[in-house]
Amino acid sequence: MDTLEIIKKRISTNKFDTTRTLSEAEIKELVSYATESPSAYNIQNWRFVAVTDPEAKERLKAVSYGQQKIVDAAVTFVVLGDLRGHEKLSAILQPMVDAGLMPQAMADGWVGQTASAYGSNEQFARDEAIRSAAFAAMTLMIAAEAKGLATGPMIGFDPEGVKREFDIPDRYVPVMLLTLGYAAPGNWPRKPRLGVDEVLAFNKCREF
Amino acid sequence: MDTLEIIKKRISTNKFDTTRTLSEAEIKELVSYATESPSAYNIQNWRFVAVTDPEAKERLKAVSYGQQKIVDAAVTFVVLGDLRGHEKLSAILQPMVDAGLMPQAMADGWVGQTASAYGSNEQFARDEAIRSAAFAAMTLMIAAEAKGLATGPMIGFDPEGVKREFDIPDRYVPVMLLTLGYAAPGNWPRKPRLGVDEVLAFNKCREF
Repeated sequence: MDTLEIIKKRISTNKFDTTRTLSEAEIKELVSYATESPSAYNIQNWRFVAVTDPEAKERLKAVSYGQQKIVDAAVTFVVLGDLRGHEKLSAILQPMVDAGLMPQAMADGWVGQTASAYGSNEQFARDEAIRSAAFAAMTLMIAAEAKGLATGPMIGFDPEGVKREFDIPDRYVPVMLLTLGYAAPGNWPRKPRLGVDEVLAFNKCREF
Repeated sequence: MDTLEIIKKRISTNKFDTTRTLSEAEIKELVSYATESPSAYNIQNWRFVAVTDPEAKERLKAVSYGQQKIVDAAVTFVVLGDLRGHEKLSAILQPMVDAGLMPQAMADGWVGQTASAYGSNEQFARDEAIRSAAFAAMTLMIAAEAKGLATGPMIGFDPEGVKREFDIPDRYVPVMLLTLGYAAPGNWPRKPRLGVDEVLAFNKCREF
């Protein structure tokens, strides 16, 4: 299907076909598309915990207001943002330096800039973790739709409970949950959107 | 082109063809795809200022470390997140209530929940503004790529300077800039990504 049609057609799914699962290989392929998203300095702050075990899904549901879709979906991702993603930047850039695509001095400059910008400002690091993880999650939703799968992003969970149940270190912010699987009947129709003129201004802002 | 190919092929563009522009109608169509993104409770916190005037682009460049791509791109968006987007939720839900798709009591419940959750917690409201705006920006990037256009998200700008120059009320967080236009020769090759196993765990987190 055409990409623009996919974007227009996608809905956030609540009802999943509980009889259909996804293999680890299928889940890895889906996440590989998410990792093609852009990120500042190519830091790639996104991380994913794919919750597929029935017992683990029940634990996730228990810290997410008992929402049934978490256990009904083939997989529910805990999408994380790394507050310290910049610490990997030197290793991330090295292949580009080695290939002659980026001068060593530029790579060193980026490493220094990011250590300063994110390392000294917790809010900026959190903003980046959320922004990058959201990019990756949106790409994952579109890729899933292209493969005939359905998704539903969720913010209804207790972040501390999720961190505790899944052994998530403090460097990672739980940015959202994302259910993914095959849709069952009975989902919402597509929800109406604000018109373009209600969210877009040219050359000068206004209060929308 | 296939959606999955588009996702794999997209790069963040720095060099734009300065001879090619986009009409307001073309820009509105692109933003309409962005508005198809999901958001919590369908609040749609994303807002866009499309900077197309040469004079306005120069002012944006001046508060963005002088980055030339801002003026070279056909349009540079200031992508905003609304910290008070939930205040519009009653009006957003009304068409669904009127169509019999959502009970009035559910709509009232959502309005109350969001007023409490976002209205009483500045960090949660900021996280939501960034998350939703990033969803919309990622969808916009993929839609642009599908239409043969190139994009580049940017975090290198002075948020207070951008707010001042474009009369942006305090309720909006500048989440990123996004250049969009036709690519010129001389862009980076695609940057390497971390492998899936470096960002994905199953059923239990680890330190990646």
